[in-house]
Amino acid sequence: MGIHAGLRERVLEGNLAVVRAGLVVLTFGNVSGADRDAGVMAIKPSGVPYEHLTADDIVVLDLETGDVVAGAARPSSDTPTHLALYHELAGVGGIVHTHSPFATAWAQSGRELPCYGTTHADHFDGPVPVTRALTSDEVAGDYEGLTGRVIVEALEGIDPLERPAALVVSHGPFAWGADVEQAVENAIALEAVAASAAWTELLSPQAAPIGDDLRRRHFSRKHGPAAYYGQPS
Amino acid sequence: MGIHAGLRERVLEGNLAVVRAGLVVLTFGNVSGADRDAGVMAIKPSGVPYEHLTADDIVVLDLETGDVVAGAARPSSDTPTHLALYHELAGVGGIVHTHSPFATAWAQSGRELPCYGTTHADHFDGPVPVTRALTSDEVAGDYEGLTGRVIVEALEGIDPLERPAALVVSHGPFAWGADVEQAVENAIALEAVAASAAWTELLSPQAAPIGDDLRRRHFSRKHGPAAYYGQPS
Amino acid sequence: MGIHAGLRERVLEGNLAVVRAGLVVLTFGNVSGADRDAGVMAIKPSGVPYEHLTADDIVVLDLETGDVVAGAARPSSDTPTHLALYHELAGVGGIVHTHSPFATAWAQSGRELPCYGTTHADHFDGPVPVTRALTSDEVAGDYEGLTGRVIVEALEGIDPLERPAALVVSHGPFAWGADVEQAVENAIALEAVAASAAWTELLSPQAAPIGDDLRRRHFSRKHGPAAYYGQPS
Amino acid sequence: MGIHAGLRERVLEGNLAVVRAGLVVLTFGNVSGADRDAGVMAIKPSGVPYEHLTADDIVVLDLETGDVVAGAARPSSDTPTHLALYHELAGVGGIVHTHSPFATAWAQSGRELPCYGTTHADHFDGPVPVTRALTSDEVAGDYEGLTGRVIVEALEGIDPLERPAALVVSHGPFAWGADVEQAVENAIALEAVAASAAWTELLSPQAAPIGDDLRRRHFSRKHGPAAYYGQPS
Repeated sequence: MGIHAGLRERVLEGNLAVVRAGLVVLTFGNVSGADRDAGVMAIKPSGVPYEHLTADDIVVLDLETGDVVAGAARPSSDTPTHLALYHELAGVGGIVHTHSPFATAWAQSGRELPCYGTTHADHFDGPVPVTRALTSDEVAGDYEGLTGRVIVEALEGIDPLERPAALVVSHGPFAWGADVEQAVENAIALEAVAASAAWTELLSPQAAPIGDDLRRRHFSRKHGPAAYYGQPS
Repeated sequence: MGIHAGLRERVLEGNLAVVRAGLVVLTFGNVSGADRDAGVMAIKPSGVPYEHLTADDIVVLDLETGDVVAGAARPSSDTPTHLALYHELAGVGGIVHTHSPFATAWAQSGRELPCYGTTHADHFDGPVPVTRALTSDEVAGDYEGLTGRVIVEALEGIDPLERPAALVVSHGPFAWGADVEQAVENAIALEAVAASAAWTELLSPQAAPIGDDLRRRHFSRKHGPAAYYGQPS
Repeated sequence: MGIHAGLRERVLEGNLAVVRAGLVVLTFGNVSGADRDAGVMAIKPSGVPYEHLTADDIVVLDLETGDVVAGAARPSSDTPTHLALYHELAGVGGIVHTHSPFATAWAQSGRELPCYGTTHADHFDGPVPVTRALTSDEVAGDYEGLTGRVIVEALEGIDPLERPAALVVSHGPFAWGADVEQAVENAIALEAVAASAAWTELLSPQAAPIGDDLRRRHFSRKHGPAAYYGQPS
Repeated sequence: MGIHAGLRERVLEGNLAVVRAGLVVLTFGNVSGADRDAGVMAIKPSGVPYEHLTADDIVVLDLETGDVVAGAARPSSDTPTHLALYHELAGVGGIVHTHSPFATAWAQSGRELPCYGTTHADHFDGPVPVTRALTSDEVAGDYEGLTGRVIVEALEGIDPLERPAALVVSHGPFAWGADVEQAVENAIALEAVAASAAWTELLSPQAAPIGDDLRRRHFSRKHGPAAYYGQPS
């Protein structure tokens, strides 16, 4: 058993779970997890086919400096985005980036994802925000780190665990959660509600988001002190 | 073999069947069955991953009082909706709730599902109704029980076994049948016709529901005293 | 080995092939094959789940009279449609009826399926015709036999092996071929081109069918005396 | 081990990979690979079902003359298109032709595929071009060879490895790469971005292609001397 073996196993499993869920083709995606007590994050290596991935391939980095702590491979090229999100979003313990088809279509359309129903509200307590575009200077500069920055900007005034996803305009979705497993669940839910929302608009161009009361009721059924969904822990 | 073992096995199998049919991702759904002679219903526990589900996890409740009769887990949070439907809809022996993508899109669009063809008529003898929205007071109150109430309201004047589904506005579909197996079949058929109906409208915005004569002919081929579909029982 | 064992095996395999290809959910479909020399057709029994189907369940009928020659089960309720097509369409040796989602949407929209590309032309030498609606009297009468009649009407002036499918309005597709295997291939191709055609119209509302020269070139690459697709037989 | 066994194995695997990726139904597709040093290309035989395909079935042809060098079967009817592309497109070592549903819909709509996001830019450094239609004389003449010609025309002024795909109008996509494996990857990416682009337009009819700076940044992350995606080779 190597260093941070438990975290690397969970990150490996998270990466495989998004493939099994149909969110990823080729190598379009990456999943990370953080161990804030140990001061590290673990992430998929860049461009390695999923069928060959093992826990030892998962790269571990210092959460502050971004230096590689364990793992021989080059980490995902999106690593600076993950680091920026762990730095700025309190309580986040897992992050999933995919190019899943419907969430990517919303991101490419430049629109936030409206909350059209309770499936959405079960996971996201409001619309999933879309980022602003990066400027030409930002694209030419620390592009991946600044991608994290525009996500954080888009979440201004929002509790990241009550709205655990954002759409990077012209790019695709990032989702997160308190741990890797919740991040994966939110990424899967995001793709499902992105699909249903697209069809909702085709069926009814006048569709409006659901009311605050219904949205809060559903979100709080599953989250927070009054939750009564799932088994008592 | 535990108490109500046969019913719990059938309810377990029904829950797994809707996953296999692609109607459910994550834990978005629940299937129940009733044994009216024994005065009980059995339902999936809340938030338990499908891959771990066993017949012993299925919770059995008193059909009148809703008290748990057997099973250690907390029942589905939608249990009061199921109880309300068993109370009010005569002859119903199984209920399926999913967030299947196309039926959910229709529910989120706030529209009833028109009968555009014989696939629909083979299962539903008319449009699948959509409920009214719950009021703010209803959302804040016995939300799940009142969800059952608005479904019953939407079925006013309709034989529930001739129109074995409804769309809860802003939420998703409920389907039912004389037993668990027929409820599962109707839930699968509902998603299929919801998809075909959406595409029918995209291909022909002037599409109109089929005539009463063709709809009745198809429904009665499969249901009722003159049925000639399937094998003699 | 029972009577007509070879034909029944091929019809069994054809029924399973359309399920594997995703054209059928539940029991929405039926495949038949004819042995014109023996004067019989063989077809799926009505409403039997595919996972339990064996060659012995396949029902054999006299091609002229429709009397059951072999098989204990009740034949598909659509048997009179198949019989009518074998009677009227020379050279047809296999027939497939499904409710595959995109072809059904075209049928429900009441529109013929235009030939928007070479995938279509490889199988269908022109638009796939849509039938007229049956009258109320026809629906109340020999409904399934008259469904065959309106298909034959829609093919007036068309060689059925050059246009081996039709859309029954408000119902769904029938496809056919010189034998069971070609009928299955045409049913699969029909669903694929129905999907691409729907998206073609969404991407370009002004899309027009391809020219006669390109369509004939592709159809005759695969069919007829000048065919040069596939291996020499 | 027969002649050109390595190339034939890779071409076999490429043909199977596009089926596994869901790009091909029936026998709608063909994958080839070239060994320019040996002066040969290898391609799928015409119309052979994928489940029976072995490396020995893969046909090897002289890259200049098109004469068969090895293999008993008739090569794909699209062989002249592949030969024309290898002749005209420097650096191309693998070619994939499919009728994948979304890329085919774009081809049938007669529209180039706009670059709406970074998934597209990761593989194609600009819109995927669409060819002009062939004239009636061209359709009646060396149809498959001239299909290669119009692809080359559509790429005028474009580095084929920076824009490794084209849409043949009224027909479907061709993709390519420096070798068979990259051609397969580009074909899979093309279908994914064709789907997301279609939905992008449905969600936002005013959607515009991404800027040159973002597109170049993403393409050069994965390709060329400054690439930093994937593992160092």
